Amino acid sequence: MEMTYIDTPADLTMQIGEAMFTQRAIRRLRSDKPVSDADLKTVLDAASKAPSGGNTQPGRFLVIRERDTIKAFGKLYHEAWWAKRRDAYGWKNRSDMPEDSPYKMAALLADEMVDAPVIILAFTIGRGGASSIFPGVQNLLLAARALGLGSVLTTLHADVMERVNQMFSVPADAEFHCCIPLGYPRGNFGPTRRFPTSQTTGWNSWGAAPPWK
Amino acid sequence: MEMTYIDTPADLTMQIGEAMFTQRAIRRLRSDKPVSDADLKTVLDAASKAPSGGNTQPGRFLVIRERDTIKAFGKLYHEAWWAKRRDAYGWKNRSDMPEDSPYKMAALLADEMVDAPVIILAFTIGRGGASSIFPGVQNLLLAARALGLGSVLTTLHADVMERVNQMFSVPADAEFHCCIPLGYPRGNFGPTRRFPTSQTTGWNSWGAAPPWK
Repeated sequence: MEMTYIDTPADLTMQIGEAMFTQRAIRRLRSDKPVSDADLKTVLDAASKAPSGGNTQPGRFLVIRERDTIKAFGKLYHEAWWAKRRDAYGWKNRSDMPEDSPYKMAALLADEMVDAPVIILAFTIGRGGASSIFPGVQNLLLAARALGLGSVLTTLHADVMERVNQMFSVPADAEFHCCIPLGYPRGNFGPTRRFPTSQTTGWNSWGAAPPWK
Repeated sequence: MEMTYIDTPADLTMQIGEAMFTQRAIRRLRSDKPVSDADLKTVLDAASKAPSGGNTQPGRFLVIRERDTIKAFGKLYHEAWWAKRRDAYGWKNRSDMPEDSPYKMAALLADEMVDAPVIILAFTIGRGGASSIFPGVQNLLLAARALGLGSVLTTLHADVMERVNQMFSVPADAEFHCCIPLGYPRGNFGPTRRFPTSQTTGWNSWGAAPPWK
């Protein structure tokens, strides 16, 4: 495989501060408004520009675009999502979930994954690990934000991996890292809150605060 | 620790496409031009806005800013860098390195780490792993690019971790992920090349090409 130069996509004009500081998990996607192939090329090109260990570029992306394939994968995603809740909390279905659970929106996404406009799975091949794919995944998510697309970083579960790998003919040396549904947002979304960096940053030593609040 | 809203920094105005597509490893840093505390707050705030698993925000950053501490850490970095070359190629010093080695610039950085204006170490605490810190690390690197700062993603080596942890009073439940020197670039840097996404993307199936070249 030969490396090439890639032109900066003309439509990634949003200021980087706005993209980063308004990025958030979007779990409600419009099933009635498709995502263009051009936008998918843009977000994947953006992903490719991120750094990887020793510039080995082990990242590989699988784009699920066919309706029947999305439906089949969406069912496995639903099973995987509930398998994770079973492992963590012993829940089997919605009736086990507390009324005020923070997982309600994620459970809705698990139901609706069958209707996602696009789903992207991220892998590495060979020796590359998470440190060589998640910088690219973040580029992909930020580029999606800049294009007005919603997305969220999700995972799968060991219960379904063999079936997923078979479904897409994933080779044995590929390692799965995350699952990213993509589409135009449904509804409105507010800003996110974070732990203040004054409390998550050590200044010359672990416990010492930086010179800001 | 209480979560807060963070305003978008006023100086992150670069278009996101430019930041992503001109980002590259910068290993030659100016030791004569300091990095401001305001810029460090900006890149760390940017890191904090990236997604993490279940929004647990396990990322913690250690900023090394004192000259004596940078010098002491820089010596450990140099040792770690050569320990990695020893493990991979049996090299002990520059005389073992081939004249045309792609590691020449990285070896120079290993020498010059003692003079880096700032060094940032990234950790997670508790259950968080690489997937919950590298999206934030990429935000940090992109924000640095937007501010005109150079940086590069580097690692350490098991040989030095105990001494690094002692030097900075890193707690036992913190996991180290990467080391990021930061400063204004010295010299000029060209664009990067990448494997084309037409060859790193599967379209509905692993081996199937997407509809672009």
